[in-house]
Amino acid sequence: ADIEAGKAKAAVCAACHGANGISAVPMYPNLAGQKEAYIAKQLKDFKAGTRKDPVMAPMAMPLTDEDIANLAAYFASLK
Amino acid sequence: ADIEAGKAKAAVCAACHGANGISAVPMYPNLAGQKEAYIAKQLKDFKAGTRKDPVMAPMAMPLTDEDIANLAAYFASLK
Repeated sequence: ADIEAGKAKAAVCAACHGANGISAVPMYPNLAGQKEAYIAKQLKDFKAGTRKDPVMAPMAMPLTDEDIANLAAYFASLK
Repeated sequence: ADIEAGKAKAAVCAACHGANGISAVPMYPNLAGQKEAYIAKQLKDFKAGTRKDPVMAPMAMPLTDEDIANLAAYFASLK
């Protein structure tokens, strides 16, 4: 996975999950340092609709498997 | 919410999510320092079946709203 590509792709995520992966909103999870495989699975589940969320579904929809791998690697890399 | 009560209730969570809320298993999320409101919502969603997971569903089933509030406060309090 490409952490730098993930970082570039993550710009839109920052609005809810924070610029450093620490959410400013109590209802939204921190992503910094989260497990890479867990993040990737959740994005795939949001995309597939097996995990349902009205905000995350349209976010995950356009992501390729490579995008997902890069995003997961990027957030997992944050402290 | 009662952090100490949450800690006592969290013994069973440690098997997958780690004794300090840092998971030893790549597919399972870290919970340490996660947002309290987010953890509580996920436990309620697992209990209600609106978030589906074969492992978490039976874990969440017996939890009261008070248990959920205490568990969320406990994991959010971990660094």
